[in-house]
Amino acid sequence: MYKSNNISNSVIRRLPRYYRFLGQLLKQNVTKISSRELSERMRVTASQIRQDLNCFGGFGQQGYGYNVEALRDEIAKIIGIDKQLKAILIGAGNLGRAITMHLDFEKNGCKLIGIFDNNLAIENLQIANLPISHINNLKNFCLKEKPDIAILCIPRDSAKEIVQNLIDLNVKAFWNFSHYDINLEFDDIIVENVHLSDSLLTLAYNVNNQIDRQD
Amino acid sequence: MYKSNNISNSVIRRLPRYYRFLGQLLKQNVTKISSRELSERMRVTASQIRQDLNCFGGFGQQGYGYNVEALRDEIAKIIGIDKQLKAILIGAGNLGRAITMHLDFEKNGCKLIGIFDNNLAIENLQIANLPISHINNLKNFCLKEKPDIAILCIPRDSAKEIVQNLIDLNVKAFWNFSHYDINLEFDDIIVENVHLSDSLLTLAYNVNNQIDRQD
Repeated sequence: MYKSNNISNSVIRRLPRYYRFLGQLLKQNVTKISSRELSERMRVTASQIRQDLNCFGGFGQQGYGYNVEALRDEIAKIIGIDKQLKAILIGAGNLGRAITMHLDFEKNGCKLIGIFDNNLAIENLQIANLPISHINNLKNFCLKEKPDIAILCIPRDSAKEIVQNLIDLNVKAFWNFSHYDINLEFDDIIVENVHLSDSLLTLAYNVNNQIDRQD
Repeated sequence: MYKSNNISNSVIRRLPRYYRFLGQLLKQNVTKISSRELSERMRVTASQIRQDLNCFGGFGQQGYGYNVEALRDEIAKIIGIDKQLKAILIGAGNLGRAITMHLDFEKNGCKLIGIFDNNLAIENLQIANLPISHINNLKNFCLKEKPDIAILCIPRDSAKEIVQNLIDLNVKAFWNFSHYDINLEFDDIIVENVHLSDSLLTLAYNVNNQIDRQD
């Protein structure tokens, strides 16, 4: 068992990468790996790998290394991939539709259960086997289905009201593609921001300043 | 003038956020702001703001605060938004198309000059006023147009070969949406990764462990 308290954000952010790497190793039929080897492949120091995994109880065996499948399963459990959190998408424009079609939600710990948009012209169109519902149906849907996560693919200007409504409806976590900074106005809400333009601007800075940086 | 050496990655990552916030302030007709006020709005400590901006030479005036427009313009210059780096998109599937239509590249320091895909069925279709070219035309295009940045919206398995080709064609920067870890195999290449599934898994972890975290 591990304790989830006091684990730094940066360790948590590395977990999905470990999970992804271990999945790739499994595909290549690699069944065990030393922290040194894993460190070379991931370009992370071996001591960081050991430290990171120790936060969750440690999984290596001295002189043997890590069992790839067992470690991957353990990380899946830590992340809670099997919990299949209920997610809804708000905003079925280009970006919302692309994310819905591009991502395998179930492999990433979630199940997409509803899609909402305020555009009557696309009501009932299907994306990823779900019909687009009008945003007016959001309240009843949330009362009944109790989603865990809302994915926001809406413009900044409409985000504040929607976020307030969703929080009132007990949605406590947001995957936020909008430019609305949720945490500036609401506390105790879990937010994961994906600010595409911030990311592109960071790249532009690095290119313009010719700095070689890695993630 | 500022020196771009020795500026930490985390400071650089905050620059686009300052830029975004200052733009919002301008829209609200705020012309000057103290570091304390800016810090309250952004939920960053005032001392961090001062430290961050000092990396680039410092812009505040004691007892006056910051001139919002001047500071925003200065940050735009530091990022190099006016440089309008030449970008090409590789992969015009759902995600590639959505990013093309969703983002205003020119506001983010870039100009999209070409779109490539290996699917003959979508050749010459227009996205954002650009025709989709077949990937076979990539080499000639790059030799002629010398793009600065390639945006990768392709599956992991095809990414390695494409990245190698692009590097051979002197493309030195990637905005990478694929799951291929470019920096593991190529040095001296500027990479900005957007790993959507890592982001969703991080959110799932935080929800499952009910930790309230901010960006």
